[in-house]
Amino acid sequence: MTFAEQYDTYRLFMEEDLKARCQHWDVSPEILSESMRYSLLAGGKRIRPVLFFAALDALGADWKGEAALAAALECIHTYSLIHDDLPALDNDDFRRGKPSNHKVYGEANAILAGDGLLSYAFELLLKEAEKGSAHLEAARILAHAAGVYGIVAGQSADLLWSDVKAGESELLFLYANKTGRMFRAPLAMAACLAKGDVPLWSRFGERLGILFQLTDDLLDRGAAGEEKRLTAVKVYGLARAEELASSCAQECCALAQRLGAPFLRDLAEEIERRKA
Amino acid sequence: MTFAEQYDTYRLFMEEDLKARCQHWDVSPEILSESMRYSLLAGGKRIRPVLFFAALDALGADWKGEAALAAALECIHTYSLIHDDLPALDNDDFRRGKPSNHKVYGEANAILAGDGLLSYAFELLLKEAEKGSAHLEAARILAHAAGVYGIVAGQSADLLWSDVKAGESELLFLYANKTGRMFRAPLAMAACLAKGDVPLWSRFGERLGILFQLTDDLLDRGAAGEEKRLTAVKVYGLARAEELASSCAQECCALAQRLGAPFLRDLAEEIERRKA
Repeated sequence: MTFAEQYDTYRLFMEEDLKARCQHWDVSPEILSESMRYSLLAGGKRIRPVLFFAALDALGADWKGEAALAAALECIHTYSLIHDDLPALDNDDFRRGKPSNHKVYGEANAILAGDGLLSYAFELLLKEAEKGSAHLEAARILAHAAGVYGIVAGQSADLLWSDVKAGESELLFLYANKTGRMFRAPLAMAACLAKGDVPLWSRFGERLGILFQLTDDLLDRGAAGEEKRLTAVKVYGLARAEELASSCAQECCALAQRLGAPFLRDLAEEIERRKA
Repeated sequence: MTFAEQYDTYRLFMEEDLKARCQHWDVSPEILSESMRYSLLAGGKRIRPVLFFAALDALGADWKGEAALAAALECIHTYSLIHDDLPALDNDDFRRGKPSNHKVYGEANAILAGDGLLSYAFELLLKEAEKGSAHLEAARILAHAAGVYGIVAGQSADLLWSDVKAGESELLFLYANKTGRMFRAPLAMAACLAKGDVPLWSRFGERLGILFQLTDDLLDRGAAGEEKRLTAVKVYGLARAEELASSCAQECCALAQRLGAPFLRDLAEEIERRKA
């Protein structure tokens, strides 16, 4: 199977699982479930669930059996996008080529759709935790990444440092919290469930998150609104930012090799290629 | 000890516990922890934790030992107030006599403070779940009450039905979800932890939530913004709403008697007296 085929195997499984879950929601009022579904089923790369499935697969575990945890990952990611897009935050009118949640349902419903998806993710985690201590620990890893020591802190920093003079330490905080924690989480969770080397898988996830964010910054240079954001290109300059992305990609590939995960090595290479 | 002294014993214990928790936060950026702390430590009746402690106490359990679950209850309640007060939702400038969170920290920070408190509550729940199956079940009860089958649905309904013709069934949905679930949760959690009669404690909590909401509606009649809200006074008329509150209070007192919880009987009477 090619890398692209393997990626799609994981991604399409996630799509089907999320669709099926939404169909089982018995949520009133209708506008609440509709607005949650709108963003959750809006497609996208599903990279966090793909990382989770691929790590479980590499570790020889039944990756399809952990779909609920993957769904929790994607619900948390989607909630964070809905809230980030709000006028008071990044004020983005479009997401994945479609009008953002608040452009369709209004700000109030978008805030509640985000709250609903976050709460739903935790209901999934607490249900999975009944399976035993490894699942409970995996749930705790994700909760930590989602919270005030993870993406909420990252988004707060992003707001704060858009207007002030900020340097490398602020950039690294932003990278670690806004992207790093939610890339680290699926790999640490998988290692925890399948008795892998949690620190090593975690390190791979953190580095891959940084690579993803570096190449994002490189891709976005010159885009609308970029002047207000703290980016690697601003902190390091273009040439140095490209060098950092290359060395980070190399480190990711070496780690994936050590972890016996060729698919994840290919994924790191794929991410690096985005910057070109 | 008088009822008021007993109430303050529970309430002040919660205050001290929440203060101590906030002091241990190591959250960056500072504005994120500051805005979370601002609302969490703004006082209030702490009625949900008080219900939880009182039920544990009545059941002969070590109520002080369950402070983390009580803190999770209050964090979830506080997050819901912060988001409800936002301009896009209820647009309230004041809360508990102080400027609301977004008036002090701005809308973006208020949204993130709410997200942070909700996530923090779930981190507490998942940590408590390590204690065993009763704690995990208690955590699940709270997660369900907090989510799309609880307060998020209640707030969504509150928005939706402010502008449309709505009747008794909508009012009961609102009561059950906006207030009922989070009054039921602490009592069901306590019963679950202390091996009490979960359905009976749950029923007491649901009825007490309805009593609280009925007396709220009676208290608020003629207040600013009331014309836009769906209330018991609108649906039933004043006299019938007062009758319903009285019979609901009687039912609560009888249930508290059956449960061997005189403090909670006094509390139901205290809530009923608010409407006068």
